[in-house]
Amino acid sequence: MLRLEQYLRLLPATSHATAPALISGYSFLSSPLPRLSALRLARSRPPPLRGKTSSPVRASAEPDSTVKRAPEMAQREVARVVADQAVARLGARLLPSAVPADVVEFRNAAGNAVGSLDVQRGSPGSSIDFMLQSSLHCEVPNGAIDITSILIFLNASTDAPHFLLELIQGSSTSMVVILDLLPRKDLAFHPDYLQKYYEETGMDEQRRKIEELPQARPYRSPSLFVRSACSPTAIMVSIDCGQGGEKALEEIIHGQLAKVIQEALQTWLDNCVDSTIEMDEAERDCLLKRDRIVRSKSIEVDLTANLPRMFGPDVSSRVITEIRKAFGVQEP
Amino acid sequence: MLRLEQYLRLLPATSHATAPALISGYSFLSSPLPRLSALRLARSRPPPLRGKTSSPVRASAEPDSTVKRAPEMAQREVARVVADQAVARLGARLLPSAVPADVVEFRNAAGNAVGSLDVQRGSPGSSIDFMLQSSLHCEVPNGAIDITSILIFLNASTDAPHFLLELIQGSSTSMVVILDLLPRKDLAFHPDYLQKYYEETGMDEQRRKIEELPQARPYRSPSLFVRSACSPTAIMVSIDCGQGGEKALEEIIHGQLAKVIQEALQTWLDNCVDSTIEMDEAERDCLLKRDRIVRSKSIEVDLTANLPRMFGPDVSSRVITEIRKAFGVQEP
Repeated sequence: MLRLEQYLRLLPATSHATAPALISGYSFLSSPLPRLSALRLARSRPPPLRGKTSSPVRASAEPDSTVKRAPEMAQREVARVVADQAVARLGARLLPSAVPADVVEFRNAAGNAVGSLDVQRGSPGSSIDFMLQSSLHCEVPNGAIDITSILIFLNASTDAPHFLLELIQGSSTSMVVILDLLPRKDLAFHPDYLQKYYEETGMDEQRRKIEELPQARPYRSPSLFVRSACSPTAIMVSIDCGQGGEKALEEIIHGQLAKVIQEALQTWLDNCVDSTIEMDEAERDCLLKRDRIVRSKSIEVDLTANLPRMFGPDVSSRVITEIRKAFGVQEP
Repeated sequence: MLRLEQYLRLLPATSHATAPALISGYSFLSSPLPRLSALRLARSRPPPLRGKTSSPVRASAEPDSTVKRAPEMAQREVARVVADQAVARLGARLLPSAVPADVVEFRNAAGNAVGSLDVQRGSPGSSIDFMLQSSLHCEVPNGAIDITSILIFLNASTDAPHFLLELIQGSSTSMVVILDLLPRKDLAFHPDYLQKYYEETGMDEQRRKIEELPQARPYRSPSLFVRSACSPTAIMVSIDCGQGGEKALEEIIHGQLAKVIQEALQTWLDNCVDSTIEMDEAERDCLLKRDRIVRSKSIEVDLTANLPRMFGPDVSSRVITEIRKAFGVQEP
C-alpha cells in the first residue's frame, strides 16, 4: 500500500483544487474543528454538534449551500477533546479568538476543499504566545485528505518547548501522526534542557507506545527542516491498517493514540506552561531569533508551498496572513 | 529475535569482563583495525594481513599468547577499505599516529575482550582536527560483540560536518549501522547550513537506500543525546537477517552497505574537508563551545559508562585519556 506521502505525490500538482504535493509535517491548514466559542456554546445544548457548527460568525462568511462540510471522524473527535483539555487548563491565559470570519472557515471555488482556523493569543503576562487549531478537508479523486493540527506556542518568558500535534489522514485506513514537544533550543548544545524536558518527563515512553503498534511505521517527513526541528522523542509515524482496516484505525485513534496524545499534553501542561526561566539579554535574543526562523521556515515549507494549490491565491493569502500574525513573522 | 540493544541489556551489568549494557551509538572502542602505518606496510607484501598485524609497536605492548585476536569479518574489511580511501585522499593533512603502544591495542585481564585505537591528528594549517579509527571485540556467553568506528573530525577553520561511522555487530546475522555527517550547527536555526550540507548533497538518498533493505529497521539509540546530535539524514538502522542469515548479512555489508558508506565518505570529502568559512569571533566561540559539549557528552555517554566494565578501570583510563586528548576535552 502506498504511504500517504507517495499518494499525495501522485496527485496533480498544478491544479488549484487538489491536495498538497508534499506534506511536511507542519500543516496549519484546517476544517471544522469548531471554534472554541462555538464549542463552549455547544456544550450547554446536547446533543453535541456534529459536522456542522452553529457559530454565527461562520454562518455569515459564505453561503452554506455551495460547499460541503468536512465529515466528522475519529481524528477530529480526538483533537477536539485534546483541545478542550488544553483550553480548560489554560483558562484565562487564552484571549478570545480574533480571527476574521472568512478565515475561521474557508473554501475553494471548486467546492471540494474546506478549511478552518482558530487562533487565540495568550493573555498579557502569561507564558502563552498563541493556541492555534486548524483542520482541512480536501476531496481528491479517490477519497479525501483530512488534516487536523493543534499548536500551542509559548512566548519568550520561557524557553520551554511548544506543543505540536498534527494528524494527517489520506484514507480511512491509514494516517500520519506528528506529536512533539517542539524544542526551542539546540538539544545537542544543551544537554540540561534535553534532560529536563525530554528525559525526565519520560516522553520517549509515549513514542515507544505508538511505534510498537504493529500497524505503525516511522514517518520520515520529506522536509529535512521538519525532521531537524522536532525532538528525538517526537512521534512521527504512519499507521496503516491495510484494506478493510477502517474499524481498526478508528480503534487505534480512539484508544492508544488518544491516550498518548493526552499524556503528552498533560506532560506539556505540567512541565512547560509554568516553566519560567531567567535569561540574560543575549540568551533571549537567541531564543527569539531561533523561534522566528523556525516559524518562518515552517510557513514557507508548508503553507506557501501548498495552500494556494488547494484554495487558490486569494483565500490562501488571507489564511496565511492570519497565521503569520499568530506566528509573529512577516512575509519574507 | 532480540534487537542488539535488548540483547546487550541482558548481559551481566556488574562484571568487568562483559559487554556494555547500553550502546549509545557513539562507541570509540576498538579491535584490530590495523594501524595505518601497519596497513601501509602490509600493502607492499601480499597477501594482506588477516587477523594479526605486524606493527612492531603493538607486538611489544603485551605478550601475544595471552589473548585472542579479534576475528576478521566483513564489517572490519569494509571499514578498512573506507579508512584507506580517507587516508589516501587526506594525504599530508594527517600526521602520523602518536598513540602509545598500550592503547594501540588493549585487552582485558580475562582475555575475552580486545580493542585497538588509532588517532592521527590533522597537520597544521589543515582543516582536520583528527581521524580516529577503533574497533572492539568482546566475547560474551553466546557469541561476541564487534564494534568498528571511524571518526574524522574537523577543526574550527570550518563549520562543516564531521564524518562518523559506527558498525556494531551483536551476532553473525545482525548489526547496527550509524553513519552520519555529524552537524556542527543547530540545523533548525540554520536552514542554509542544512541545505548546503544535507539537502544539496543528496545525503537523504543514501539513507533511503539502506532503510529500504527489507532486513533494515530504524535503530533508536537509547541515548536521546545521540539522537539529538545526529543529522536528519543520519543512517541509524539495525539490519537483521534472521536465523541462518550469516551469508545474507555479509552480502549486505560488502554490497549495499559498503557502497553507501563509500558514497557518504565521498560526499564528505568533496563538500566538507575543503569548506573554509569566514566566521566572526562570536560565531567561532559558539562553534567551539558546541563542539566541546558534543565531544564531552559523547565520551560521557559512551565510554566512561561502558569501557570500564569491559576492560577494567586501568586499561579504560588509558584509552579514554587518549580519546580525550584527540577530542581536546578534559575530564569533567
